[in-house]
Amino acid sequence: MATGAVHAVILRLEATPELHASGSIVRAVSESGAVITALDIVDPGLDSVVLDLSCSVRDETHVDQIVAALNAQAGCHVRKASDSVFLAHLGGKIQIALKSPLRNRADLGRVYTPGVARVCRAIADNPADARNLTIKRNTVAVVTDGTAVLGLGDIGPAAAMPVMEGKAALFKRFADVDAWPIALDTTDTDEIVRTVELIAPGFGGINLEDIAAPRCFEIERRLRERLDIPVFHDDQHGTAMVTLAALRNALRLVDKPIGSVRTVLVGAGAAGVAVAGLLMRSGLRDLVAFDLGGAIHTDRTDLSPELVDLARRSNPRQHTGTISEAMAGADVFIGLSGPDVITEADVAAMAPGAIVFAMANPDPEIDPVIAARHAAVVATGRSDYPNQINNVLAFPGLFRGLLDAGARSVTDEILLRGAHAIADLVGSDRLSSVYIIPSVFDPQVVKAVSAAVVDEARTATD
Amino acid sequence: MATGAVHAVILRLEATPELHASGSIVRAVSESGAVITALDIVDPGLDSVVLDLSCSVRDETHVDQIVAALNAQAGCHVRKASDSVFLAHLGGKIQIALKSPLRNRADLGRVYTPGVARVCRAIADNPADARNLTIKRNTVAVVTDGTAVLGLGDIGPAAAMPVMEGKAALFKRFADVDAWPIALDTTDTDEIVRTVELIAPGFGGINLEDIAAPRCFEIERRLRERLDIPVFHDDQHGTAMVTLAALRNALRLVDKPIGSVRTVLVGAGAAGVAVAGLLMRSGLRDLVAFDLGGAIHTDRTDLSPELVDLARRSNPRQHTGTISEAMAGADVFIGLSGPDVITEADVAAMAPGAIVFAMANPDPEIDPVIAARHAAVVATGRSDYPNQINNVLAFPGLFRGLLDAGARSVTDEILLRGAHAIADLVGSDRLSSVYIIPSVFDPQVVKAVSAAVVDEARTATD
Repeated sequence: MATGAVHAVILRLEATPELHASGSIVRAVSESGAVITALDIVDPGLDSVVLDLSCSVRDETHVDQIVAALNAQAGCHVRKASDSVFLAHLGGKIQIALKSPLRNRADLGRVYTPGVARVCRAIADNPADARNLTIKRNTVAVVTDGTAVLGLGDIGPAAAMPVMEGKAALFKRFADVDAWPIALDTTDTDEIVRTVELIAPGFGGINLEDIAAPRCFEIERRLRERLDIPVFHDDQHGTAMVTLAALRNALRLVDKPIGSVRTVLVGAGAAGVAVAGLLMRSGLRDLVAFDLGGAIHTDRTDLSPELVDLARRSNPRQHTGTISEAMAGADVFIGLSGPDVITEADVAAMAPGAIVFAMANPDPEIDPVIAARHAAVVATGRSDYPNQINNVLAFPGLFRGLLDAGARSVTDEILLRGAHAIADLVGSDRLSSVYIIPSVFDPQVVKAVSAAVVDEARTATD
Repeated sequence: MATGAVHAVILRLEATPELHASGSIVRAVSESGAVITALDIVDPGLDSVVLDLSCSVRDETHVDQIVAALNAQAGCHVRKASDSVFLAHLGGKIQIALKSPLRNRADLGRVYTPGVARVCRAIADNPADARNLTIKRNTVAVVTDGTAVLGLGDIGPAAAMPVMEGKAALFKRFADVDAWPIALDTTDTDEIVRTVELIAPGFGGINLEDIAAPRCFEIERRLRERLDIPVFHDDQHGTAMVTLAALRNALRLVDKPIGSVRTVLVGAGAAGVAVAGLLMRSGLRDLVAFDLGGAIHTDRTDLSPELVDLARRSNPRQHTGTISEAMAGADVFIGLSGPDVITEADVAAMAPGAIVFAMANPDPEIDPVIAARHAAVVATGRSDYPNQINNVLAFPGLFRGLLDAGARSVTDEILLRGAHAIADLVGSDRLSSVYIIPSVFDPQVVKAVSAAVVDEARTATD
């Protein structure tokens, strides 16, 4: 499946002047189906010329084809293909800005020495003032160990940085939260916990990101015990919040109460465990979860502590069969796994008014177009189909609310209230099978989520 | 000594309506010598009114006097005194900004999923690309444990944050470096080293800040061994660079070669040890350093490893007497200690053309006005006297150059070249006893220092 995005690419290539003059470079690119938008000479050498050829292409594979076609020509060598995605990443995506200008001595004396000494002393005397007089009240650390980055897996901290920076950019863009990426050069649970604990004084919250299961569960649990600021693993709870919001609205649409539906959940990693937990917390009773070892039930002996717990709390009919068997008569399918996990026949065998959330990225558990032949509502994790279940709907408003409330922890009640706020933004007049969840660019989302979070966090403290 | 800065203060007070009507609140403030600039009613209650009284005051003591005078009036209570320094710190001093806008789906798909996955993969395939495709190439961590903050000592990580944020603001303002404060909740050397090592992947440099001696020496040394990015303790080497720059020019002025002068250095903490090291590296031969135990010489048995090393390399005449005895006939005094360490008689006893750098902050080792009666050149760490020896002259340009050169370490040669670049900005036509060092707002400083650093770093790599 193509992701639907057209790339702008710049190819820097070296060619003999003869080849360039013959026009066969341009011809090769055009014949591949790319649209040439510019051709610039970077270095007009006598023996070889260096060219920048700008063109629009369909996708990465298309770029590879063009590069191969060019390199196949005698006297031509592509040095580098830079596309618009890479150009958008040059030098990184976020930077620091001053909140007030530093123009002269008076400014310097206020924000640095000698003035700053009095502010330091005030915080030393009254530590609670750190939230008023430093960035702590608006700052979140986006912490990863780089072990479960998107669908790429364990690519390490350096390679995880573009995602963490992107996350920081989203925090700022959607909720005016100042987030800073911290990519840790360790995969040791104790070291991750201790490091986050040690860097915590300057932050008002911790957003764990792309840390592999089952390590992520212990890291989050221990940090929540030790820190007096909210700790939130977005891959778990952000996904759970948005899934719950989408499911509430999908169930409204098919008019089924959450307590009576049968649900099949495939994928029991970080996201799956959290989604199952939050849905059951919301009243879902009949949920059968699957991991690579099959249905999760209490007779399994190969389960991590989190899955032992899940086995105890879910699967009331003690299903021990296949996914296909579980799908027969099910009302809801939730996929947080990988491509091609269920078939068209599986969806066709579901109960009337079936709901299919095929959220694996980039390739869903079933082609959503095929699923829609039989299901009443289909949602994915992708932006090019209706009903994108996207964490961007949750984490910015959640942290905006947590920081505004000065919250010291995240509770299930806060997650539920946030999820309900997202769902409630879709009014009955607009709710439909292709609109069960608001757009990520809907400016009401952050306001609604943060207001609900502030309200719940303050109520809990009172 | 007053710092010379006038504060704007807002007093929030509660008073009986009768007291407010009588005018005695305004009278009490005026009689204390403050200038009232505004009086606003915040809450006009029947039993008590809440007022915001804005005024200009001399200093913090003056505020205390006014508050005491107001609280002494029956029916009046000052809730809070907010001055302009505190107002400048509300919510902190730095924030995140996006490098390019996030307006629509296309932008989102470039800087976040799905586009970002290809950038991550590129870095995983070629780790060196992290410097091109992430913030690493422009980013410095400002790391402290909060144990030696300004003259305040061990105030802890939360209270150190205003200084670290101020430092980050200076990095951005003067050198467009994106620095982020990391305040560590530990004073354990091993933990500090390990934590900085673990968070290093996302940063292009480490600026250690306000970490107490002697721990700071070991932390810096071990981090330099382990990391492939520059590690720099500003309290040590920033001070050393600017002191060397100022001394070079002061010696030009009095026409003495550095190899022939006798120097007394008082204060052998982080800064003192580094200053001594860099000056001797520049040709200074006769230096006698003092700590609280007296002159540092090879017969002392109470010295830390760094001071044992300093004892070996300095004090060639094996001076074992007092500071006053060492001052007799000395050419240069460098103070990095505390107030009132030397007397007018000490300065009078120095050689002709004496140079006095009394750099303790806020109260120098001797009143610079008194020192100037006998010395040819006097410098301090303060902004309200001539010749301020201020690290802001060094660290922004240094890191600008290190990042631009992609330097993996800081060498003594780099520090020397940076210091010479600062000194060389004061042309012979402008060099005078009140102008041995450029202003921190001179835009040439960062350019000159970074150019020298880039040149030296690249030469060393070639």
